[in-house]
Amino acid sequence: MEHEYNIWVIGGDLRQAKLAELLLADGHTVHTYGLENMPEPGEVPIEESLRGAEHSHCVVLPLPVCGEEGVLNAPLSGKRHLLAGILDRLSPGQVICAGLVSPYAASLAEQRGLTIRDYFAREELAVANAIPTAEGAVQIAMEELPVTIHGARILVVGYGRVGKLLAHRFSVLGARVTVAARKYEDLAWAKAYGYATEHTGELDGWLCSYDLVVNTVPAQVLGEARLTDLQKGALVIDLASRPGGVDFEAAARLGVKAIWALSLPGKVAPVTSGKNIRDTIYNILKELGV
Amino acid sequence: MEHEYNIWVIGGDLRQAKLAELLLADGHTVHTYGLENMPEPGEVPIEESLRGAEHSHCVVLPLPVCGEEGVLNAPLSGKRHLLAGILDRLSPGQVICAGLVSPYAASLAEQRGLTIRDYFAREELAVANAIPTAEGAVQIAMEELPVTIHGARILVVGYGRVGKLLAHRFSVLGARVTVAARKYEDLAWAKAYGYATEHTGELDGWLCSYDLVVNTVPAQVLGEARLTDLQKGALVIDLASRPGGVDFEAAARLGVKAIWALSLPGKVAPVTSGKNIRDTIYNILKELGV
Amino acid sequence: MEHEYNIWVIGGDLRQAKLAELLLADGHTVHTYGLENMPEPGEVPIEESLRGAEHSHCVVLPLPVCGEEGVLNAPLSGKRHLLAGILDRLSPGQVICAGLVSPYAASLAEQRGLTIRDYFAREELAVANAIPTAEGAVQIAMEELPVTIHGARILVVGYGRVGKLLAHRFSVLGARVTVAARKYEDLAWAKAYGYATEHTGELDGWLCSYDLVVNTVPAQVLGEARLTDLQKGALVIDLASRPGGVDFEAAARLGVKAIWALSLPGKVAPVTSGKNIRDTIYNILKELGV
Amino acid sequence: MEHEYNIWVIGGDLRQAKLAELLLADGHTVHTYGLENMPEPGEVPIEESLRGAEHSHCVVLPLPVCGEEGVLNAPLSGKRHLLAGILDRLSPGQVICAGLVSPYAASLAEQRGLTIRDYFAREELAVANAIPTAEGAVQIAMEELPVTIHGARILVVGYGRVGKLLAHRFSVLGARVTVAARKYEDLAWAKAYGYATEHTGELDGWLCSYDLVVNTVPAQVLGEARLTDLQKGALVIDLASRPGGVDFEAAARLGVKAIWALSLPGKVAPVTSGKNIRDTIYNILKELGV
Repeated sequence: MEHEYNIWVIGGDLRQAKLAELLLADGHTVHTYGLENMPEPGEVPIEESLRGAEHSHCVVLPLPVCGEEGVLNAPLSGKRHLLAGILDRLSPGQVICAGLVSPYAASLAEQRGLTIRDYFAREELAVANAIPTAEGAVQIAMEELPVTIHGARILVVGYGRVGKLLAHRFSVLGARVTVAARKYEDLAWAKAYGYATEHTGELDGWLCSYDLVVNTVPAQVLGEARLTDLQKGALVIDLASRPGGVDFEAAARLGVKAIWALSLPGKVAPVTSGKNIRDTIYNILKELGV
Repeated sequence: MEHEYNIWVIGGDLRQAKLAELLLADGHTVHTYGLENMPEPGEVPIEESLRGAEHSHCVVLPLPVCGEEGVLNAPLSGKRHLLAGILDRLSPGQVICAGLVSPYAASLAEQRGLTIRDYFAREELAVANAIPTAEGAVQIAMEELPVTIHGARILVVGYGRVGKLLAHRFSVLGARVTVAARKYEDLAWAKAYGYATEHTGELDGWLCSYDLVVNTVPAQVLGEARLTDLQKGALVIDLASRPGGVDFEAAARLGVKAIWALSLPGKVAPVTSGKNIRDTIYNILKELGV
Repeated sequence: MEHEYNIWVIGGDLRQAKLAELLLADGHTVHTYGLENMPEPGEVPIEESLRGAEHSHCVVLPLPVCGEEGVLNAPLSGKRHLLAGILDRLSPGQVICAGLVSPYAASLAEQRGLTIRDYFAREELAVANAIPTAEGAVQIAMEELPVTIHGARILVVGYGRVGKLLAHRFSVLGARVTVAARKYEDLAWAKAYGYATEHTGELDGWLCSYDLVVNTVPAQVLGEARLTDLQKGALVIDLASRPGGVDFEAAARLGVKAIWALSLPGKVAPVTSGKNIRDTIYNILKELGV
Repeated sequence: MEHEYNIWVIGGDLRQAKLAELLLADGHTVHTYGLENMPEPGEVPIEESLRGAEHSHCVVLPLPVCGEEGVLNAPLSGKRHLLAGILDRLSPGQVICAGLVSPYAASLAEQRGLTIRDYFAREELAVANAIPTAEGAVQIAMEELPVTIHGARILVVGYGRVGKLLAHRFSVLGARVTVAARKYEDLAWAKAYGYATEHTGELDGWLCSYDLVVNTVPAQVLGEARLTDLQKGALVIDLASRPGGVDFEAAARLGVKAIWALSLPGKVAPVTSGKNIRDTIYNILKELGV
């Protein structure tokens, strides 16, 4: 550790609790508020008020920072906290971080001369979170398929962050992986890593050869016609955020097993998720010269 | 397919049902007996008697072939069949296969001038089954660990069939893998594939650095002293057949989460298991020139 | 093949000759001009004039298209051809492709109402060419190092196209790979693929731990101070285009073996280079709906 | 280091010189004899006589230990040494190691009450040496093929030590690898690692689909008929020790490029070879409780 920081971790779920634990283990001075019901607090200090919070180097608010009506997202607290009340206690000289900062939350901060930095908007966190997402998808595939990943024929639709890491994992586990993408550049990358490739626009009529199709693209890639084309017993996993990439109604009607798996990092690897947030907070502090 | 065989598949569980389905799909003439309650029989012929069984090229009995008192292992049958009665209907010119053939079953066959070939004793099936075993262990690790496999520190004890394939899988998924073995030759192989190595006899005092320890050796590798040495939250998976390699009582007392995972192939990948048995049956027939 | 094209391949080196051969093998009608001294022409038609060239679907000019004074780059021709004279024979309805099109060449074309499409500027070709570049660097490392890649400690500076594929290759061959980059996003990707990481700005004092340093960044990453820091016997490979990333004078003075390896694709894998150009030409034709 | 040994390194080539350097760097007391012309001796002590050699813990003789007429293999010495004369100076209480110990050398030792332990006969060294052999074969393939390993179709004949590590390397570099072997067990392993497989006895008529065939089996796998079957431009690399596995005369006649690559470890990675010998010497000393 190059610097020893004084950090307040306020609100949030298990990831936020893990974050506090990790920061403490790194040697920083840590205070938590709105996390009093965390399991296994160990040495983590639980504060009953925000007294002194305005003097810390950094304040970490939760992901997402608040729900409707401006209530702080704090499932591990027995009380109801208003974000406005929290922000009233902070000062402009501090680094204030949060995840998924809504326009409302940003304006509350601005009214008080504060800036909330959105760690969830940073590319390095998005990349780091793609790892537990990809692992979570592999886990679901292992649980649901009656065959091994080894030897399975798998189609990964989309070659963004999650698509890249997912194709890699399935391939090294012995699957025969095909990547579908639209851009020639993406197809060139997929070939460079050794996968078969298909243009997403030309998948019609070819889906019957896969044991598993995983979609990572937030557009309806798997409509009724393509679902009909799947072989009996094939599995579909959709990792795309809303509105998703699969016509789930049609899937149900056709008897195709389709699983919509969202928010995997916090579910399958909360400790790793906490670490990823910690590393991003460190990067923010370093960039700001704190 | 080079040859078209006439094959009877008698008794057994889901793997045996899948085997019949796969043999049929390969173009052979298939009869089943003692499998009448199989789910989704599709086109698979279900016979009510063994009439004609003595004229087939090959008879496949279940894995294991029978339980105590000489009763055929046939959980998918509504009736109770004696192995002796089945064998009475077969002839010496046929290839008769089964898995885990007990001395009692072998002697019953010998009395009738028959030879039962144990496909489960063949090395190529043991290797093929090591794949679903290794995948099953990866799945359990993903389900149980609060961190991703990527970046986890994992110790694999033993470098036999399962140890080799397991170290490979964890490593390609991004874990930092250490292999413990006793023979210098095994340690040289583990190094050649890029893993860190430890001599199994010298593990005392070093176990605290792992997030996961997987044992594949049928000897008590993880007794109370070593379990005490594990870090808080570490997971233990034991893949060793009875008597296993972990002192589970001590683990429970110490609060160490330890999972004894047996017979994974049939559980995590019944279709793959059926395929592996099929391939082995083909090898036996080929070797015998049938 | 969906379409059968009429294509003229004009001038260029061995890659252009291979391109003509590959297009012919794909079933297209091919003419070559300015390539009459190609080795092993086989069935490839060698034309003595450009008669009829204006009626073809596509004309492929060389990489780079011309040298100084407007002379066509045609090392496999016994004659001197002016680019202007070639362009005089082409027509606006054709797809005219070339590599590394200079402003002078582009203006010559424009004066004639023609557009030259630069295939070398396309991202998918840059990605495809990064593969032979990365393999070429591995080959040099194998040739020059007195140790195996397996177990070697290797630093890859830069995580662009070549850096990504190079780190991957060294890693899967068993090296302990560290990636140095400047952007947190790049460092996150490098971690996601399992490499150790360093910030390029913080390498001072750490270079002594590597057997091999490969630079891919076109900026002087390895100046005298850092070269001094290398261990005795360490190898440096510079893949950066001019002006390169290594102070080669200082390296010579310090006795550090440093190799500047440029234009590897055409050298180590001319057939693959020809294939990559062919695939890019097909993409251009497809995009234009030809 | 657990023990500090007194070791004499006598005769041999560059590997033996590297061995002495490595043992010294590990903190042992090292003497060399018959290596006086080694390049860059650095701190390595060069003795002019064998005085005191009988009191050391261990004596390392070269690989191979001697040539015809009982002359010590000592290319880095200006003198001619008889093995008998060396052995006269050693004592039964020492650990005496050498590589490729001939019956004649063994009997010379026995006459003097000495035992020479053959480190080259140990399995862990054979495995360790398979790594530079496999890398050397990859290097040759990269140098000779006009295509990249990525995407090449490669047949590896034999799945012993070298075959295993070679198939792995080609595969992770992006080649489409097929393994040919005779035993079902070996074929099962090759499948488990994700390669296509062929039975060695059934290769006739299928060789035309490969860009590269590497033989590792010491039996004539590639006779005239199979060489005729290869596609134009295909490369053959033979790693089998004498008499080799390729009919080189037929290859020359047919215009097939075939390379017989022997003794690769000492050629492509002398430092790694020295390290491998060192590790094996340590294992011998440990087993003997020295």
